[in-house]
Amino acid sequence: MGEFAFIDWLRQRTPSAERVLLGPGDDTAVLRWPSGTDCLITTDMLLEGSCFRLADTHPGSAGAGTARQIGRKALAVNLSDIAAMAGIPRAAVVSVGLPRRGGRSLAEQIYLGMREMADAFDTAIVGGDTNSWDGPLVINVALLGETTLRGAVSRKGARPGDVLIVTGPLGGSILGKHLDFTPRVQEALALHAAVDLHAAIDISDGLAADVAHLSQESGCGIVLRAESIPIADAARAMPDKRSPLEHALGDGEDFEIVFAVSPADAATLLHSPPIPGLTVIGECLAETGLWLEKDGQRLPLPPLGYVHELE
Amino acid sequence: MGEFAFIDWLRQRTPSAERVLLGPGDDTAVLRWPSGTDCLITTDMLLEGSCFRLADTHPGSAGAGTARQIGRKALAVNLSDIAAMAGIPRAAVVSVGLPRRGGRSLAEQIYLGMREMADAFDTAIVGGDTNSWDGPLVINVALLGETTLRGAVSRKGARPGDVLIVTGPLGGSILGKHLDFTPRVQEALALHAAVDLHAAIDISDGLAADVAHLSQESGCGIVLRAESIPIADAARAMPDKRSPLEHALGDGEDFEIVFAVSPADAATLLHSPPIPGLTVIGECLAETGLWLEKDGQRLPLPPLGYVHELE
Repeated sequence: MGEFAFIDWLRQRTPSAERVLLGPGDDTAVLRWPSGTDCLITTDMLLEGSCFRLADTHPGSAGAGTARQIGRKALAVNLSDIAAMAGIPRAAVVSVGLPRRGGRSLAEQIYLGMREMADAFDTAIVGGDTNSWDGPLVINVALLGETTLRGAVSRKGARPGDVLIVTGPLGGSILGKHLDFTPRVQEALALHAAVDLHAAIDISDGLAADVAHLSQESGCGIVLRAESIPIADAARAMPDKRSPLEHALGDGEDFEIVFAVSPADAATLLHSPPIPGLTVIGECLAETGLWLEKDGQRLPLPPLGYVHELE
Repeated sequence: MGEFAFIDWLRQRTPSAERVLLGPGDDTAVLRWPSGTDCLITTDMLLEGSCFRLADTHPGSAGAGTARQIGRKALAVNLSDIAAMAGIPRAAVVSVGLPRRGGRSLAEQIYLGMREMADAFDTAIVGGDTNSWDGPLVINVALLGETTLRGAVSRKGARPGDVLIVTGPLGGSILGKHLDFTPRVQEALALHAAVDLHAAIDISDGLAADVAHLSQESGCGIVLRAESIPIADAARAMPDKRSPLEHALGDGEDFEIVFAVSPADAATLLHSPPIPGLTVIGECLAETGLWLEKDGQRLPLPPLGYVHELE
């Protein structure tokens, strides 16, 4: 069984879509691009043993997922990036590096998980690259999206005085949410349609780390209010000594969206929320730096969160 | 030294480009898309030990390349896919899985090689994903391109009677060309501007294998004429017992383009070649199947070439 048999298997399962002029199986895919919209592109690589563990080979391992869940997640993390720009996901290409033994069955499970997620977000899987090797499983997804007529929301536009809002509770994602989260694509579009989002980011590295990115790109400071940060039940259930707040600030992979809006737009959103679950967690400052306000005190907040170390 | 320091290093080296509204360092890149052109998307994953060997860690290993050469190649194989559609490359996103030790220096070398290639083809590197792990080096590139006003050339449009032409000599690529080939982007654009290309493919798996893809997708047979196939000097220098013709038919990674045109257009191209090196190697047939004509005999041609086996 070679890669081409697998590509045939894929093609039989690829629904046609009007904007996909040519799908899997050629040198490139061809997409019709609507005039007047910009093109968003993002990519994420998931590496076995570093970014995920397979439940099939590591049963009982903390946070391990089935191949289907990992496939779902590989697309979902990219959808979350498109959500962070308030864009519309359109088409993905997928590369896999498969272990030689059991690779075909793994590939099918990964694809089926991915297709679940793709179908839920009207995203076509238009091509890819299938490899086998002696190393662990590697999955790479690159995802294309379109901007709405309101344009993309970057990390850059937050202004002093802006209110910071998050779309859901945070912390303890490793207990399950990191595998079955819903990328906030629809939520971001609804918010961007209701008001002018100045800046946004999805929480992948951790609230403190991601808010630090937003602060740095926007060139303004940020203060978070400890008492306001919505804490997930999972953060309280974590079996270690860190507090639920520390988990909410430091844990990654919640894939909620944090965004900055003017005080007037914040008031509009809180008065008539276009989506449930919005919580004000802080504001942007003229002075640079990242701060946590707790028990009436303002303390420097280190940008906790996961970083890939390079030597 | 973390991934973000590397991203800063990248950003300092990223030239601005008019069509890149937002480059590396945000949740996605944002590209201005010209109206009226379709979007091409392709992706390729290079895995250490399977797709390449690093000369740094395997000195003297056949076909091994430096990190810079591997970076160059990782982009070049994608550029070749865009060339096979007669498209214009525009923007790439790059993911890497780096070994923990020496990963930063590897990442820089890979990027510098890639940038050489990107600059030569006016392609922006607009984003990516930097990871470290305990496995071997993995590089994934996804490349976006635009169609010209003549549209994309797929593998599907060859017709019985069409003439098959190749852009250069074949075989023995492992002796060096696989690392320093020039993707036939300009050549394909010049050909597509001169005549109507019915179908095209780049030779990555091997002439026989890739012509088999073209034959299958177009639903027509193909006969290659052994005496006409241009054989590279490297194919004659290969230190094994296979003949130069076998190398030209079976070796992969020459990254020349094979294309099908009407007999009238073939005559036009041969009379006033828009690019040098064009050679007629066969023609398309009404009956399906892949054939080799040699010494006046027509024999079935197996689709030799590299296939990733999946168990």
